[in-house]
Amino acid sequence: MTPIRSADALSPGQSFDLGGFVLTRAEVLDFARRFDPQPFHLDDEAARHSIFGRLVASGLHTYSATVGHLIRSGLLAEINLGGGGCELAWPAPLPPDEPVRMTLTVEELRHSRSRPDMAVAKLRYRVATARDGTVVLDALATHFLRR
Amino acid sequence: MTPIRSADALSPGQSFDLGGFVLTRAEVLDFARRFDPQPFHLDDEAARHSIFGRLVASGLHTYSATVGHLIRSGLLAEINLGGGGCELAWPAPLPPDEPVRMTLTVEELRHSRSRPDMAVAKLRYRVATARDGTVVLDALATHFLRR
Repeated sequence: MTPIRSADALSPGQSFDLGGFVLTRAEVLDFARRFDPQPFHLDDEAARHSIFGRLVASGLHTYSATVGHLIRSGLLAEINLGGGGCELAWPAPLPPDEPVRMTLTVEELRHSRSRPDMAVAKLRYRVATARDGTVVLDALATHFLRR
Repeated sequence: MTPIRSADALSPGQSFDLGGFVLTRAEVLDFARRFDPQPFHLDDEAARHSIFGRLVASGLHTYSATVGHLIRSGLLAEINLGGGGCELAWPAPLPPDEPVRMTLTVEELRHSRSRPDMAVAKLRYRVATARDGTVVLDALATHFLRR
């Protein structure tokens, strides 16, 4: 995507369709082994007896892959200075190999009091299945952006 | 650690020292390449000119490694049914190879209205450097726990 040149080019309510991605079964298992080795992320039979009813991606993986997708889109490449926190929700679990799409929405934007060359933005990452729009990640992230 | 047998064995205010871990430079770079490929997580020279002043771990990595450390501790192995969201803050960045320690605190605990065999807990993950206690992750996570 065309990189945004300054935080001043953003305004609350703006929304960007960032396209799709997929967490493959191999990626889901690899991530879970490293960072979230629980039975419902690693073993089909154990997952069937979990509250998820089937093997699902770690929510950490959904979140990390979403940020990876955002960074690779290039949208914020010229203005993102760092992150300041995030409120995460996983309204539904994400099974492996299920294509999803990501939308980024500017929820809030204000100038930094201490640094006039910086803005503080709240950006919502919404990830939903391509199949039927089931939301699998809803994250409200604080970003420090260059003006 | 000895696994907790039931959510009923927990109470608000309880705290668990989960010991330490380290994100090595190789791990920091590998995670950033996959999930957060920004200059200040990948390149020493670029990082020197960032707001961090040096190369630092992706906050996603700090968070993921913290959950991995918690799961591997075994503390919740018999009762954790899944996660329901998280409020994340990174009060300070974490440089590679800097040893940290993790504390888990029970902030809230209530019975599920819909499922009497389940409790909903808010658990705080706090990760601080072993060197001087600088907090690098403060996360308030919602867990569904078996009673």
